[in-house]
Amino acid sequence: MDVNRLQGSSRFKRRAIKVEEAQRLLLEAIPPGYGEHVPLLHAAGRRLAAGLAATSDWPPFARSGMDGYAARSEDIAHASPDRPVELRVIGSVAAGEVAAAVIEAGTAMRIMTGGAVPAGADTVVMLEQTTDIVAAGQPAVLVKHAGKRGSNIAEPGEEFRRGDAIAAPGTLLRPGHAALLGAFGYANVPVYARPRVAVLATGAELQPIEATPAPGCIRDSNSAMLAALIAEAGGVPSLHGRLPDELTAVITALDTAAEQADIIVTTGGISVGDFDVMAAIVRTIGRQQREHSSVQNPMPAAGAEGDRLLFEKVAMRPGSPTSAAMYRGKPLIALSGNPGACFVGFELFVKPAILRKQGIETEQALPSETTAFLAAEFAKGSPHERFVRARTFVEAGRLFAEPLRFAKSSMMASLPEADALIRIPSGPAGAEQGSLATIIMLGRGPRFAR
Amino acid sequence: MDVNRLQGSSRFKRRAIKVEEAQRLLLEAIPPGYGEHVPLLHAAGRRLAAGLAATSDWPPFARSGMDGYAARSEDIAHASPDRPVELRVIGSVAAGEVAAAVIEAGTAMRIMTGGAVPAGADTVVMLEQTTDIVAAGQPAVLVKHAGKRGSNIAEPGEEFRRGDAIAAPGTLLRPGHAALLGAFGYANVPVYARPRVAVLATGAELQPIEATPAPGCIRDSNSAMLAALIAEAGGVPSLHGRLPDELTAVITALDTAAEQADIIVTTGGISVGDFDVMAAIVRTIGRQQREHSSVQNPMPAAGAEGDRLLFEKVAMRPGSPTSAAMYRGKPLIALSGNPGACFVGFELFVKPAILRKQGIETEQALPSETTAFLAAEFAKGSPHERFVRARTFVEAGRLFAEPLRFAKSSMMASLPEADALIRIPSGPAGAEQGSLATIIMLGRGPRFAR
Repeated sequence: MDVNRLQGSSRFKRRAIKVEEAQRLLLEAIPPGYGEHVPLLHAAGRRLAAGLAATSDWPPFARSGMDGYAARSEDIAHASPDRPVELRVIGSVAAGEVAAAVIEAGTAMRIMTGGAVPAGADTVVMLEQTTDIVAAGQPAVLVKHAGKRGSNIAEPGEEFRRGDAIAAPGTLLRPGHAALLGAFGYANVPVYARPRVAVLATGAELQPIEATPAPGCIRDSNSAMLAALIAEAGGVPSLHGRLPDELTAVITALDTAAEQADIIVTTGGISVGDFDVMAAIVRTIGRQQREHSSVQNPMPAAGAEGDRLLFEKVAMRPGSPTSAAMYRGKPLIALSGNPGACFVGFELFVKPAILRKQGIETEQALPSETTAFLAAEFAKGSPHERFVRARTFVEAGRLFAEPLRFAKSSMMASLPEADALIRIPSGPAGAEQGSLATIIMLGRGPRFAR
Repeated sequence: MDVNRLQGSSRFKRRAIKVEEAQRLLLEAIPPGYGEHVPLLHAAGRRLAAGLAATSDWPPFARSGMDGYAARSEDIAHASPDRPVELRVIGSVAAGEVAAAVIEAGTAMRIMTGGAVPAGADTVVMLEQTTDIVAAGQPAVLVKHAGKRGSNIAEPGEEFRRGDAIAAPGTLLRPGHAALLGAFGYANVPVYARPRVAVLATGAELQPIEATPAPGCIRDSNSAMLAALIAEAGGVPSLHGRLPDELTAVITALDTAAEQADIIVTTGGISVGDFDVMAAIVRTIGRQQREHSSVQNPMPAAGAEGDRLLFEKVAMRPGSPTSAAMYRGKPLIALSGNPGACFVGFELFVKPAILRKQGIETEQALPSETTAFLAAEFAKGSPHERFVRARTFVEAGRLFAEPLRFAKSSMMASLPEADALIRIPSGPAGAEQGSLATIIMLGRGPRFAR
């Protein structure tokens, strides 16, 4: 097949849709993935496939919050350094033990932090506020501070009642969840499988990272960047190599990717060039779909082989030729070969797809937006809205975003430092220094969170 | 050995030092770890062990930023849709190719995005602004827009000159670095080895996550939490199990940990309780050190076996009994068994130690602080400064931190939601709603960065 023929002059007539419309078309075409159980120690960073509930009250029993003496508050309501109260010590309870006796008037029990408060006691006095003595040959304690009902005791069910929800489906599991899930006995945790994301780079100029590029050639750095982005977003990247600008080779590789992966991401070949093979493939899918739907089957959602065009142009800078289709039933996201546009396209389309595959609803899978003050103007206007790489910082409680230099689509120098994208609306002017802008925080969050 | 005897009455006489002093004592005792080379595809999330430089100019040659025609700007300086300029097409250059001819007056060459701009050309006109024709039997092009010198061309060295620094030692490698390192041919990357961090939980009350706890017992959830925190901070956790409150068993486990790990973290047993085995060990190290230094060797930095007390109490809430020592030459950080205090102690001491082990200087290894407005008051005063779990959010460019409920040292319920710690100075009052507070952002950054 001849790429140039497939591209033809219609290559200039692609219809641009808005970013949100493109995101929704893509996300709504993606079915959630499947769940699996993983050991708690491997669950951090994964997304819950089911809601989890407290399996007991928490704390499960009245626990001492201090090393000290368990006693009855009415016995020591008026204790003071000058007028200490003497209590007979009838035993001790370490953490992990259960008291053998009940606290009655005039008695106390030595208790350690985490120990189960014995029946009859309703307060714990810190060790530092007592003195051990022997009275009439028996162990006793002088309590030198007044104790109040409930002091230094964590009541059962104070934090959770059995059956309380502790985490909703889709929750990103953080270290704090490990504590909760561990306490409630979730040794194995239901999580969504990490989506497998195939990466294909197209372009005759691409050479391996190990190579010394021939004149006119460059190394395929986008595959390495995409692999890192995919892993950071919770996916499992698999690199399907560098492909020449030849339709047959690319289709063969796409077919393999569609069999093996949950999401296919390509970089390169989506513009109006003579060899832009991904553009040719995407528009062929669109044309077959139109022919198919008008002739054989008036209302099919997908083509005969699970192919369906989702969009072939997006009203955005950089990366307006970014395209997406369902390919053999799998979402195929065709990103620009320009590193800056590839980076932005990942954040706007691939990361949400990875989240959606883990059961996240469309609204929550979209990039979360917040606001920041512009630390410098962004002077350039644009007919399409623009996503500008930026670094963020906080000064006196105000969040600032500074547009980075080397911001062109083809440029890489700003990528390591970028921790946010500033969203500049379309229009003749850019945005002024000090104005409030919408931003999208990237990846592992701002660099000021070290 | 008898824990109770070792603890004795001196257990109440531990000297508290300030948080910063404790952090510095710890970090200055830790030698950086060693470097290793990893494939670029596994380098994201690691810390560079050496500075890296550009191995060529970037771009390495004049690259076309568009699909179009390479031409001489002086030929088309006045081209317009009404008065197009006709140029003879003398060839084409795809990405990865090198032009076979030189552009002379009146000629142009078809060129694709990423193609090397042929000699003689100093501008590229977008395909959309041209029309292909045949003139006198030869291919030609009508240029309908004026072209300026340098338009749509990325000049060699525009982003980097060969030898320019691209990343400093200690840099956390993000996806954007993968792009740069890939472009410059770093197929293998020098990074610090991930520090191996041993986790030991002490306490007779602790049972496995899989267990149904006996009365008075709880599951060991701190080990699971610490493992997740360590992995998030870049370390490799290894769990050395739940240990009884017995000196011999704990010392045996610590010796094994000191042999196998770079950093040892314990949880539990550091307070004033009768069975607080870690407190007993730490203070034994301190006593041996004092005896050793006064009698045998007046100024040794470390004990005979590489043991040295660093601190045994910190002026902070929660977690004031947090202690640290060098144990058999390895940093040992003894955290509280209370989950809230364990969580805070990790952030203040263990995470900086993991960074220091990866070559980060003390100043940069300390938790990075920023400021936020308090979304609610924190009324409670404290004789020690306090680290309050909080969630952050942004409203109209202002960063807010909201103190979370369930904030007691023994409580877990706030841990999953906490993405920051508010630092409340010591004093009789707390901090008012709307006031500017110092905060430490945690782990993977704020939850508003999804």
